[in-house]
Amino acid sequence: MKVKIFKIGGNVIDSPEKLDAFLEKFSLCEGPKILVHGGGKIATRLAEKIGLKVTMIDGRRVTDKDMLDIVVMTYAGLINKQIVASLNNKNCNAIGLCGADSKVILSKMRSKVPVDFGFVGDPISVNTKALTALLSAGFVPVIAPITISEEAALLNTNADTVAQTVAVSLGKTEEVELRYEFEKKGVLLDVDDPDSVVKNINPAFFEKLKTEGRISAGMLPKLQNALKAVGEGVKKVYIGETIIEA
Amino acid sequence: MKVKIFKIGGNVIDSPEKLDAFLEKFSLCEGPKILVHGGGKIATRLAEKIGLKVTMIDGRRVTDKDMLDIVVMTYAGLINKQIVASLNNKNCNAIGLCGADSKVILSKMRSKVPVDFGFVGDPISVNTKALTALLSAGFVPVIAPITISEEAALLNTNADTVAQTVAVSLGKTEEVELRYEFEKKGVLLDVDDPDSVVKNINPAFFEKLKTEGRISAGMLPKLQNALKAVGEGVKKVYIGETIIEA
Repeated sequence: MKVKIFKIGGNVIDSPEKLDAFLEKFSLCEGPKILVHGGGKIATRLAEKIGLKVTMIDGRRVTDKDMLDIVVMTYAGLINKQIVASLNNKNCNAIGLCGADSKVILSKMRSKVPVDFGFVGDPISVNTKALTALLSAGFVPVIAPITISEEAALLNTNADTVAQTVAVSLGKTEEVELRYEFEKKGVLLDVDDPDSVVKNINPAFFEKLKTEGRISAGMLPKLQNALKAVGEGVKKVYIGETIIEA
Repeated sequence: MKVKIFKIGGNVIDSPEKLDAFLEKFSLCEGPKILVHGGGKIATRLAEKIGLKVTMIDGRRVTDKDMLDIVVMTYAGLINKQIVASLNNKNCNAIGLCGADSKVILSKMRSKVPVDFGFVGDPISVNTKALTALLSAGFVPVIAPITISEEAALLNTNADTVAQTVAVSLGKTEEVELRYEFEKKGVLLDVDDPDSVVKNINPAFFEKLKTEGRISAGMLPKLQNALKAVGEGVKKVYIGETIIEA
């Protein structure tokens, strides 16, 4: 089956207008599809409200036990169910999941060395059987970036990584497209020119652009991940309108 | 198919030992099954932490917009995913839902007259097609007591009513048992004697007990609801060990 996997992040989630516009577009997209969403600012706001001290190391949040509860509540609870409610209202048969549901995304707690980020996990496997069963039954999985360890611990996980892991795993048996919603129109050759969107990138063209220094530092890891995904069997990755292919 | 629907409330959820013992028993129960869970004290505790004023009318909480967010976060987020994680760790293929997922439980916002309880809903229909599809695919639905209105509003809903509505709706096509976990061994004829459990109750016996004044005030609505369920096609209702049949 052809499966489209969409990923939205905080810039979409934190804007009611952008979120509604995206969900409208997503609901109209035909065929089997999955939505992976990130977190946005609501977890931090709730942490502040209850006076929780947010610890950052190298600009990244440490997920201690209290913060984990907040992240599970807001990502897998509030945000996930608000998205699911809105999609069902748009005649999209959405069903909200996190990685713990049917062990859809099993992860490994990140090593505490050299830096202990707390309850953070990196995906190790995807229950593709569960996802294809849901897709075949006409459900539209909406996945929050919380995963589960072998020891049944809930773990906070990067949403881009969740989307990528789901895409690569499903890509082994299905024809998968991965679409990252992006604040710009696509990958730009000139950051100051919104119309300088690259239409297609393949590994050779990427190397050329990189050698010429035409890829911004922020774009580099995104493109490397996208190329890794297509290298591992994902058919196409979209970053905005830019198509990355093998 | 034969479906067992279990319902647990705050007395189980608020005790890690009781919850684990129940989930162990539930995971070992064979065949298609559904778990409906209530809320417990965590929503109230979180509301207090963020300084939310909890308004009570006639001993019942008013669910204003802020309280709704908290209830969605804790019931459909934290509690639901903790239960799901624990069940999956016990080799039970649990998938967490609330009524908004695939519009599993559509409800109507309660009338604001005579009392405005806020974002509270009463179930009007169940997406039995979605539930039977999940059960047939081997999933074990774990349902949080949040429902969705025709207008896509998330609504706080009584968990007993959710369990009862799901049981009656599924009971139209499937052979359904509804099992309420109960703090006592079962329905007692003598509240001071834990061994005075009634084994079976049918409508005639209920009327006899009621006439003789042998049913406590607290037990009366529970039994009336159970009898209503069996009257509407549920095969058996268990309140603890007591079996209610038509």
